[in-house]
Amino acid sequence: METKILSGKPVAKRIKALTKEMINQNDLKPVLVVMIVGHDSASEYYIDSIIKQGAKQGVDVQIRKSDSVSSDDLAEFIHNFNSDSNVSGIIVQKPLPKSVDEHFIGKLISPEKDVDGVNPITVGHLYLGLDCFIPCTAEAILEIIKFYDIKTEGKHIVVVGRSNVIGKPVYNLLLHKTSTGNATVTVCHSKTKELEKYTKQADVLITAVGSAKLIKKEMIKENCIIIDAGINKIGDIDGKSVFVGDVDYDDCFEKCQAITPVPGGVGSVTTSVLLNHVVRSKKKMQKIK
Amino acid sequence: METKILSGKPVAKRIKALTKEMINQNDLKPVLVVMIVGHDSASEYYIDSIIKQGAKQGVDVQIRKSDSVSSDDLAEFIHNFNSDSNVSGIIVQKPLPKSVDEHFIGKLISPEKDVDGVNPITVGHLYLGLDCFIPCTAEAILEIIKFYDIKTEGKHIVVVGRSNVIGKPVYNLLLHKTSTGNATVTVCHSKTKELEKYTKQADVLITAVGSAKLIKKEMIKENCIIIDAGINKIGDIDGKSVFVGDVDYDDCFEKCQAITPVPGGVGSVTTSVLLNHVVRSKKKMQKIK
Repeated sequence: METKILSGKPVAKRIKALTKEMINQNDLKPVLVVMIVGHDSASEYYIDSIIKQGAKQGVDVQIRKSDSVSSDDLAEFIHNFNSDSNVSGIIVQKPLPKSVDEHFIGKLISPEKDVDGVNPITVGHLYLGLDCFIPCTAEAILEIIKFYDIKTEGKHIVVVGRSNVIGKPVYNLLLHKTSTGNATVTVCHSKTKELEKYTKQADVLITAVGSAKLIKKEMIKENCIIIDAGINKIGDIDGKSVFVGDVDYDDCFEKCQAITPVPGGVGSVTTSVLLNHVVRSKKKMQKIK
Repeated sequence: METKILSGKPVAKRIKALTKEMINQNDLKPVLVVMIVGHDSASEYYIDSIIKQGAKQGVDVQIRKSDSVSSDDLAEFIHNFNSDSNVSGIIVQKPLPKSVDEHFIGKLISPEKDVDGVNPITVGHLYLGLDCFIPCTAEAILEIIKFYDIKTEGKHIVVVGRSNVIGKPVYNLLLHKTSTGNATVTVCHSKTKELEKYTKQADVLITAVGSAKLIKKEMIKENCIIIDAGINKIGDIDGKSVFVGDVDYDDCFEKCQAITPVPGGVGSVTTSVLLNHVVRSKKKMQKIK
């Protein structure tokens, strides 16, 4: 059987259509604030993509920079966005300067506008299965599972990675009693011994570990499904840098049943999830008024 | 090698000593409110044990009953305890009447006094690895791991159960980067197929599923360590009811390296953890004043 490529593009397209519909039906003017704290971050590419996609979908993306890293200044800075009724989403660009505690920042963002799920209140809701904004990349993974109708109930899903933004929300959501949950889940990470012992058992393998081409074909089960959220920059043979996943795509391609490409997989869904959150938040705010 | 019995008693004893020390050193008069909502709950035994242990350890345990199950009445009821500076801990007895949403109640309890970790803010802190009150039975399991110096890093720990109060906090904490974390964790539950496939792999098996004697010796690995948080009432041969765990203790005893008894294991640590939380909370409140 031919391997199926789980492209992120049609998934993103469907989310964008829903976002557009929500904007039009409710005549919304959503604004997302992207905060940059301290020095410029390394992820300009991601910010550019948010601005461009925002423009296409009708979300005004505003970049706001705080030169100060003092706690008081940051609290005031974020407080202004929280109380600005035009703003319906706030995200803080990572990585943050080392002197700034990410949880301190997370707690400052009002849960209503916490579109990337970093406030402990949002996190608590996620963990308890209550309504909340799920961190965008984690939700992108679930959207791929939904779109391609990947069955999770009773399946053995191995998640490699335990970060607050991807691995942790994903493995928790896969255990919830939902249509994308009820899986038997194994979580692996940097302290796991004999990683292949676990990855080889996976009906569905999800990687979010940031280690280029870590997973080789000897480490996977025949006919498994692979969702690769890793985006690792490596130098290619011509001296130009290219992006690859945590899975060695070419090596694993023939052995698996289906696989997300990198780029063009999980990453290409994330921004559309983010903008969808901003619009959902705006819709809620409008109703409350 | 002889099987080691992981009794909860010395673990509880150590926690009680720490609690006592904290009370004496700070001259505290801690008060725990145990709320009973609507009809009387089935768990009088547990409440009795809290009152008795509280009296011994210097924690005043007060039972407060709300006959009403209306949201407004409950909110006012809990609000009074939140604002009462004598009260440093609030728990709500379960099971709740069906008409009352446990998350609604959880959100009402001030995080500072949320000694059984049910408020989403508390839960978010736990999940992010921040300071908080961990649900008492989950913490009791970790206390047993600490006390008996059970190594978790790089070990394969299989958790059977995914409840908000035991399974879920336990599997998350085992994945944190702490001395009781860094394990490779597999989570099983009612939708898991071929449960024994997973339990057989466990270096450490933790059960919290509420199914009497579910785990038999064929389902475990030679020399594994078993921590059994199940407490199931069954009728014994004389017609009297007895309590057994999720693990068939007699059946598994010789094959495993160590095992917690039921009763006398995890359950016997839980109340001392709860009272310790009440005193920790009181100490914090005193410092803030």
